[in-house]
Amino acid sequence: MFRTLAAACLALLATAAIADEGMWTFDNVPQAAIQKKYNITLDKPWLDKLQRSITRFESGCTGSFVSPDGLVLTNHHCAMPCLAEISSESANYVDDGFNATTRSAEKKCPTQILSVLVEMENVTAKVAAATAGMKDAQANQARKQELSKLEAACTKNSEKSRGGPLACESVTLYQGGQYYLYKYRRYDDVRLAFAPHHAIAAFGGDPDNFNFPRWSLDFSLFRVYDKGKPIHSPNHLSWRVEGPQVGEATFVTGHPGSTSRLLTVEQLRFQRDTSVPSYLIRNSELRGRVIQWGKTGDEPARISSDYLQSIENSLKVYRGFQTALLDDSLFARKTSQERELRERVKSDEKLSAAVGDAWNDAANAQERYRQIYDRYLYLEAGAGFNSKLFSYARQLVRSAAERSKPNEQRLREYADSNLPKIQSSLLATTPVYPDFEQVTLSFSLDKLREALGPDNSIVRKLLSTESPQSLAEKLITESKLADPAVRKALWEGGTAAIQSSNDPMIVLARDIDGEARAVRKIYEDEVQAPVASAQERIAKARFAVLGTNTYPDATFTLRLSYGAVDGWVEKGEKVEPYTRLSRLFERTTGKDPFRLPQLWLDARDRLDMNTPFCFVTTNDIVGGNSGSPLVDAQGRLVGLAFDGNIHSIAGSFWYNGEVNRTVAVHPAIMITALKDVYGANDLADELLGKR
Amino acid sequence: MFRTLAAACLALLATAAIADEGMWTFDNVPQAAIQKKYNITLDKPWLDKLQRSITRFESGCTGSFVSPDGLVLTNHHCAMPCLAEISSESANYVDDGFNATTRSAEKKCPTQILSVLVEMENVTAKVAAATAGMKDAQANQARKQELSKLEAACTKNSEKSRGGPLACESVTLYQGGQYYLYKYRRYDDVRLAFAPHHAIAAFGGDPDNFNFPRWSLDFSLFRVYDKGKPIHSPNHLSWRVEGPQVGEATFVTGHPGSTSRLLTVEQLRFQRDTSVPSYLIRNSELRGRVIQWGKTGDEPARISSDYLQSIENSLKVYRGFQTALLDDSLFARKTSQERELRERVKSDEKLSAAVGDAWNDAANAQERYRQIYDRYLYLEAGAGFNSKLFSYARQLVRSAAERSKPNEQRLREYADSNLPKIQSSLLATTPVYPDFEQVTLSFSLDKLREALGPDNSIVRKLLSTESPQSLAEKLITESKLADPAVRKALWEGGTAAIQSSNDPMIVLARDIDGEARAVRKIYEDEVQAPVASAQERIAKARFAVLGTNTYPDATFTLRLSYGAVDGWVEKGEKVEPYTRLSRLFERTTGKDPFRLPQLWLDARDRLDMNTPFCFVTTNDIVGGNSGSPLVDAQGRLVGLAFDGNIHSIAGSFWYNGEVNRTVAVHPAIMITALKDVYGANDLADELLGKR
Repeated sequence: MFRTLAAACLALLATAAIADEGMWTFDNVPQAAIQKKYNITLDKPWLDKLQRSITRFESGCTGSFVSPDGLVLTNHHCAMPCLAEISSESANYVDDGFNATTRSAEKKCPTQILSVLVEMENVTAKVAAATAGMKDAQANQARKQELSKLEAACTKNSEKSRGGPLACESVTLYQGGQYYLYKYRRYDDVRLAFAPHHAIAAFGGDPDNFNFPRWSLDFSLFRVYDKGKPIHSPNHLSWRVEGPQVGEATFVTGHPGSTSRLLTVEQLRFQRDTSVPSYLIRNSELRGRVIQWGKTGDEPARISSDYLQSIENSLKVYRGFQTALLDDSLFARKTSQERELRERVKSDEKLSAAVGDAWNDAANAQERYRQIYDRYLYLEAGAGFNSKLFSYARQLVRSAAERSKPNEQRLREYADSNLPKIQSSLLATTPVYPDFEQVTLSFSLDKLREALGPDNSIVRKLLSTESPQSLAEKLITESKLADPAVRKALWEGGTAAIQSSNDPMIVLARDIDGEARAVRKIYEDEVQAPVASAQERIAKARFAVLGTNTYPDATFTLRLSYGAVDGWVEKGEKVEPYTRLSRLFERTTGKDPFRLPQLWLDARDRLDMNTPFCFVTTNDIVGGNSGSPLVDAQGRLVGLAFDGNIHSIAGSFWYNGEVNRTVAVHPAIMITALKDVYGANDLADELLGKR
Repeated sequence: MFRTLAAACLALLATAAIADEGMWTFDNVPQAAIQKKYNITLDKPWLDKLQRSITRFESGCTGSFVSPDGLVLTNHHCAMPCLAEISSESANYVDDGFNATTRSAEKKCPTQILSVLVEMENVTAKVAAATAGMKDAQANQARKQELSKLEAACTKNSEKSRGGPLACESVTLYQGGQYYLYKYRRYDDVRLAFAPHHAIAAFGGDPDNFNFPRWSLDFSLFRVYDKGKPIHSPNHLSWRVEGPQVGEATFVTGHPGSTSRLLTVEQLRFQRDTSVPSYLIRNSELRGRVIQWGKTGDEPARISSDYLQSIENSLKVYRGFQTALLDDSLFARKTSQERELRERVKSDEKLSAAVGDAWNDAANAQERYRQIYDRYLYLEAGAGFNSKLFSYARQLVRSAAERSKPNEQRLREYADSNLPKIQSSLLATTPVYPDFEQVTLSFSLDKLREALGPDNSIVRKLLSTESPQSLAEKLITESKLADPAVRKALWEGGTAAIQSSNDPMIVLARDIDGEARAVRKIYEDEVQAPVASAQERIAKARFAVLGTNTYPDATFTLRLSYGAVDGWVEKGEKVEPYTRLSRLFERTTGKDPFRLPQLWLDARDRLDMNTPFCFVTTNDIVGGNSGSPLVDAQGRLVGLAFDGNIHSIAGSFWYNGEVNRTVAVHPAIMITALKDVYGANDLADELLGKR
């Protein structure tokens, strides 16, 4: 009986081997599965070279080196923040694209930071030792302190390393089953080399987003500089312009952001009932406000475009989450998997003692979270104060207070290892648009009052004689934080400067800080702590039952996924895996988001209408993989991931190889665009190794 | 065993007797339960007088006669459509209120129609005979034809009745368990006599909506005219200004709109998974667009105010639906109720033969609905063409086609009995605001494309060279349908006029009519028909098992609910059932929606701060009951229902007497407002019977 039960368990729990499932860490690549399905062995040099060819965009994307001179390929939508920051009323690089015809014309992005993963160190034992025998809340604090300490020591030790100090970040894998230090080389002089027009990069806009067939030329090129010169990047990907064949194996490497495949049933229910509906309703309204404001003129349209694209993308993702979570079969499957794992634990006395009733503990914590969710979301997590200026104020107020404490006792995001990022974002000369700030801030104050109620003490404090609109107007017009020099003075002035400031945004951030920290404390001690403890124990159970032939949830760290070029069947009809250039011209309406730039209309006659445009593969990826290269068995670039199909969104919760697809730009269309449309021949030659 | 099972069933299924549950028809008032709990007997004269004192606002509210001269009391929010229609840039009756100091100053509402229920006739047997032995789709058509026929005959027969012809409407009770003809006296000369400022009527706005404690002076007064003179209304309610005591019994009579308490589990799941999320996401975005547009000036703010209030109200309701539907205990309860009813049916051979597997049939129909939902919603149900001008166009195009058919073969809404309403709304001189039309129409075209996809044939037809924004602009600027004379010509010109019209809105409505009718046909034959048949059979099962001591779901027809003044316990704290005037002044912020009109600030010193303002009762009501009077055992008016507390929203699915509360305006504050704030002494005296 036990064997049968065990076999059934394994069949249900370990589905990884069946499909092209998983975002695997580089130290645990499923060689056997890949060998079996595709007859390919990825040896260490192959993996090492790939790892070093990949960069992480700290803004949330992936890129890859594509020339020895620091040229980096990523998506156009990953370039949007930079494009928005370097654009102005007189130079709209979003709409018009950007083409640095010489290297000296390449334009520095104010806030972009790129990282390359150099080394990974397993510190699970050290973290376990630091928290041994503690109660949940205490362990939660101790764990954070230990991670801050390890990060700081690691960064210090790396100072002597070849190529200068590394940035060390702790990474929690398998929900606490493993802890790692990931060591990155950081680059903060990142310059834009090329971006196509937004209209062709995001052709089809929100309607086509997460859909396929597709015609989005979603690529851009950056170059990494150090001390004023392009870096040397010997590890880079060469191009196979003809792309992969149907059925051919493809590997995607990058930094998938976040998945929820290991969550307990009650954690999923919390998403279904609380966080996802709250997100959808709130951000749908925000979308409406931003769209309508964008219609008030060309400048508003330009200013809001990047922001709107990002909201609409998230909304589509969350709608996909909702659909997946409302599918009772997901809960049925997760429930039975969980039940079987729990039974396995129960039947093993030793394991049972180590794991306890972790699922129930997590469920109780989730219930507590439900009670404080709105307060936490609006006061601490920022939903009540949607404004760039407020974010500056919050960071200045918090960092002044936190920097005066020893490194390990700070809020984690103010640990020494994170300060450079904070400083760089605070001091960057990015534009602030007061009218747009009023749109988002008045909206979020409206929602704050709606969520906490007009008689809540913070709401009364803020809105006893103001409306959300009038308060937002006052704060935005009177605050001086849009000026980087003012922020610099406050950053350098520390606690004294913050205490004596009468900038209304600083005053606001100061005024609500006590309440915000109070609800964060409840969250950390009564939600995060028991969940972390429960998850560590569930991870133990999984390892005990399933071994280590599994992959952790995505954590915006380096992963490899394997798969192949393949369409899928949608409502009984086969979706072909490739699109070609001709249909792009047939689908244009002349109006956004189905408008083609004049340059493309002019180029039409000289283009080969058979050029492949986009294609789909079975690779298992998620947001954060945007900009990831697809490589073939020889490690050559054969595509650029930029999206998933609509079914890929449910991939947050499970991978369904029947329908879940990665959507990629084909290398041929990128080369065609550079050469035959934009006349960027030097860049094209550099990509093709001809320079 | 059978007896025990039966007893358990009844305990689970028939909860009505336990709490103050139910919206009862006047022919089936639960006398025994009322007698038992409150020691009150409602005799026939009491019920008859009450019935004749109640009016239905065809726009979706209830009112009651409160003087012998046709004066009608209802909510301020029920007056909003009229206030918006009679306002203009120079006279803002929404913001400033309206006070007809003499009868001749009372202002006619362009589209308001009031009805008084005169008689009810049970026609269940006739309908059953007309559909006997038919298949679902055929029965569905035959049923509609029979109802149209019965309505027409009834109206014709009533021509000789005292007081002129009646409007006969068929009513489906118990989801098809009973069919009735309800016969109404209609009044279309309805004039506004009094409305307070919007700021005090809707004090607290959206944040306070569906909440309690509450300070909203949500009342208004109309007068019904006939042949230019106020009608004589011998059946009217006298006022008990001191209001009811805590614990005292109160009765609410009115026209509750719609509840879903008798839906099957799969029908509820459809709401949870499909219709409710779709509604929330769509209308949250619309809310954002309307709010942001309203900020572009005073006129936009005025124009959008009524519309916005209505969206926000619906959004709160739907959020409440979502919360209720995501509560797994609701599904657990509904599932076990359903299972027990099904078992009872199964155990009775004869019943089983009559009922069949009605639940499964309804579930299959629901699945079919899911497949066509977006097409139905956007093309037929209007979500894709959110515009007053388009509604006119649709009605003109459809009515021309339908009126040329025999009465019984028309789409139901164009049956003879409905034509007067359609004609009156088509020919009324209500303002159309082109800029606002563009906001709503471009939004809905955006959503149409989002839902059906850019490659859908209708979408391609409409948007092959246009964006939603540019198409909306064109349609709104070029259409002449804002002019009532143009609409009149098209209405009177019939099919020929419609066919030869080149008004772009008429052309649009004509162009999509085929597709819209096609999806409606699928809906009617494959969703509505099997659901109607299943529901008729489930109703049979309920009557067989539970007897007739139950109430039907709300259908915007006359009902009585019983209850008592009582607070409830919220998160461990008792909520007192009354609010008083003093706290109104403490809660004002000076800014909408917590702003007090200057007249109120000026009056403050002469008002008794102890005046009761709002109160709550356990009466079971729902939207449509807005404006319903609360009466005491003697039939005297002791309150005016205008809202429910937040828990009342779940009342769509079940009644929970612990927390579900009706929120009412106290008579004392209405009299105080009329006399001591607005100087409307004549009206106050009329209400108090002093004239």
